Amino acid sequence: MDIKVKTENIFIDRSEIESMRHEAGRALDRLWSGKEDMTGWVQAPLNMSEKLIEDILNVADAVKDEAELFVVIGIGGSYLGAKAAIDALPKFEIGIPVRFFGTGFCPDDYLETIELVKEKNTVLCVISKSGNTTEIKAAFETLKPVMAEKYGGEEEAAKRIIAVTDKEKGNLRKEADEKGYVTFEIPSDIGGRYSVFTAAGLLPMAVSGIDIRGLIDGAKEMATSPDWDVDGTDYAVARELLRRKGERIEVMEVCHSRLEFFGQWVRQLYGESEGKEGKGLFPDVMMLSRDLHSMGQYLQQGPGGIFETMVLVDRPFRDTEIPGGDLAGRTIGELNRIMAEAVAKAHAEAGISVIEIHIPELTPRYYGQLLYFLETTCAVTAMLEGVNPFDQPGVEAYKAEMRKLLKK
Amino acid sequence: MDIKVKTENIFIDRSEIESMRHEAGRALDRLWSGKEDMTGWVQAPLNMSEKLIEDILNVADAVKDEAELFVVIGIGGSYLGAKAAIDALPKFEIGIPVRFFGTGFCPDDYLETIELVKEKNTVLCVISKSGNTTEIKAAFETLKPVMAEKYGGEEEAAKRIIAVTDKEKGNLRKEADEKGYVTFEIPSDIGGRYSVFTAAGLLPMAVSGIDIRGLIDGAKEMATSPDWDVDGTDYAVARELLRRKGERIEVMEVCHSRLEFFGQWVRQLYGESEGKEGKGLFPDVMMLSRDLHSMGQYLQQGPGGIFETMVLVDRPFRDTEIPGGDLAGRTIGELNRIMAEAVAKAHAEAGISVIEIHIPELTPRYYGQLLYFLETTCAVTAMLEGVNPFDQPGVEAYKAEMRKLLKK
Repeated sequence: MDIKVKTENIFIDRSEIESMRHEAGRALDRLWSGKEDMTGWVQAPLNMSEKLIEDILNVADAVKDEAELFVVIGIGGSYLGAKAAIDALPKFEIGIPVRFFGTGFCPDDYLETIELVKEKNTVLCVISKSGNTTEIKAAFETLKPVMAEKYGGEEEAAKRIIAVTDKEKGNLRKEADEKGYVTFEIPSDIGGRYSVFTAAGLLPMAVSGIDIRGLIDGAKEMATSPDWDVDGTDYAVARELLRRKGERIEVMEVCHSRLEFFGQWVRQLYGESEGKEGKGLFPDVMMLSRDLHSMGQYLQQGPGGIFETMVLVDRPFRDTEIPGGDLAGRTIGELNRIMAEAVAKAHAEAGISVIEIHIPELTPRYYGQLLYFLETTCAVTAMLEGVNPFDQPGVEAYKAEMRKLLKK
Repeated sequence: MDIKVKTENIFIDRSEIESMRHEAGRALDRLWSGKEDMTGWVQAPLNMSEKLIEDILNVADAVKDEAELFVVIGIGGSYLGAKAAIDALPKFEIGIPVRFFGTGFCPDDYLETIELVKEKNTVLCVISKSGNTTEIKAAFETLKPVMAEKYGGEEEAAKRIIAVTDKEKGNLRKEADEKGYVTFEIPSDIGGRYSVFTAAGLLPMAVSGIDIRGLIDGAKEMATSPDWDVDGTDYAVARELLRRKGERIEVMEVCHSRLEFFGQWVRQLYGESEGKEGKGLFPDVMMLSRDLHSMGQYLQQGPGGIFETMVLVDRPFRDTEIPGGDLAGRTIGELNRIMAEAVAKAHAEAGISVIEIHIPELTPRYYGQLLYFLETTCAVTAMLEGVNPFDQPGVEAYKAEMRKLLKK
């Protein structure tokens, strides 16, 4: 495990952490037992067949040869993991731009995407377990005729459509089989927010030029790490103890502009896994030092109830030195590190608990470790909290209201 | 006042709102009296001289003629207002790309910006009251030599540097006067987060092609609106009553991708004005429907303590119809409206208070009304809360720690 967790700066007694570790270990055992519902993601990186990886890479290569643009239609768990990784990671392979679409009903997004598809040689990828989400249907039904007109009919367009969906069930699977789309499977025992190591996450990443083998290797290393009984569960335990102590908000802080969307991935993972039965921490994201100049005042002197989790990259890939003025000779990476240290100190002095998660570098391998680490941590925290990490009974409410309004 | 506020869907008695209106009116009177510290922004749109507007437009025209790229160095209030407006508004005039820089210490940002400045014909604009912020110094000291090398010496580079700063005080003013930079003033009685209607906000907007006269006209209309005794204070009063009732988090929701950064502007305005003396609502931002697929579960079934403020644009500039499937004939704008209605209903049924703020269209004029409305509302809420809306004593803490670490 190359990820390091520091929990020294939290206002929780070491002994409390020690005494909850056993319970966290039991939660881990349940996850690893293979007997719990919707825990397919736990073994997914280990069980991933060489054939599936080859298939994903071959299709990605064909897309890169053929197209200038890869439009991915997906929402929630069907896009956050891929989008966050594409923002975060360097592209070691040749790739093409990936545009995510269908994440809402903004007319400007629609008109811009339609124009782009008309202009650029495009392959379309729809990622949805059911194919029934209104956002997805609206986006797909809008782009299909654009593709058909561009490529001379539905049949030609169908050769440029990929569906990532359930193996057997749902409208999208039915349509894909009828029209002959290339398809990949989202396993039925893996929920959207835990699907980053399936084709839903890996195909768009591969098309963008990310080394997905590195990412999977990182997840494997984390899944088989012997460190789970210490660092691995400390973060989960600390989060749950802070919640029990009365904290209400966890601010996930990043110091690298490439990681902003990674924060959104965490927000879904935590919010949807833990926010139920009147429980759960409110997950928020801040970019440092930028947001200290907007939310720093509130953190320092507001009503409290907040703790911070800093995700810190120890070594930047590249750096630059300030040539003049009283900061001459300092590098930007150095200032970034000093800034993070200063924040941790200033906030600890203001009584705010600060957890640090260090990753050595922003490579696919370490990033794969990080994602798998956070998925596991999140599931363990939810189990310590006493809720099911893998359901989301509350997300249907607005969809049901929307269906009612659409029928009027 | 073309902005409409709907407070019907909140779990607060009408009579409570009525009974706090008088107090809100007194807060408004204090703001308008011209006697309170740091309230220069209240009269700024009304007092703005034609000469200042002409100066800004002339400099912006010269920049657009001369350069391909406008790099703005600023952080917090010195960039959020301009950045949010440039994202949000259509460009009715010809403009050039504006890149904001110096908002943190991300080495990738640095290296990308240095490359861009080398490639593109660039004018540099530094926006800082003091010129002493570490982020600003690091960014400015990095780009000055790049400009000097590119344009053949410091003197030539100085012709392409603009400083927006204090009239008399601070290092940046001193340097600007020595080197002969073109300068604009941030009035000393206007704080950063209330500075959007000064050159700090208006110059970058004008360079990007935004009709700043329209924006100022909107702010003037709002400043002189006779509606302040009803709609105008309802939102401020509702927020304060919800806070007193025990709500902890206000989620600002937008349904248009162009408004995402507007949410960040609000977050600074509210967080820094209200988050002090152990009080204040935690301001959060969500993009709908996107974030319902990540945070919807938490809103619906988490621990509560949250209310929502939806900022809704009634008429999109352009729209598109879905050609096929069971949504055929619906427009995306219509689905967006129905989605927002469904969310308000579903959340009200789950016991969540939902406030709606409607603006007719995303034009500079209505957007100017909206910004002025929110500035005033924020100041009034802070005064009802019993704190000074215009100081930020807590933001110095990490800066002081950083200075200590830099001296080591």
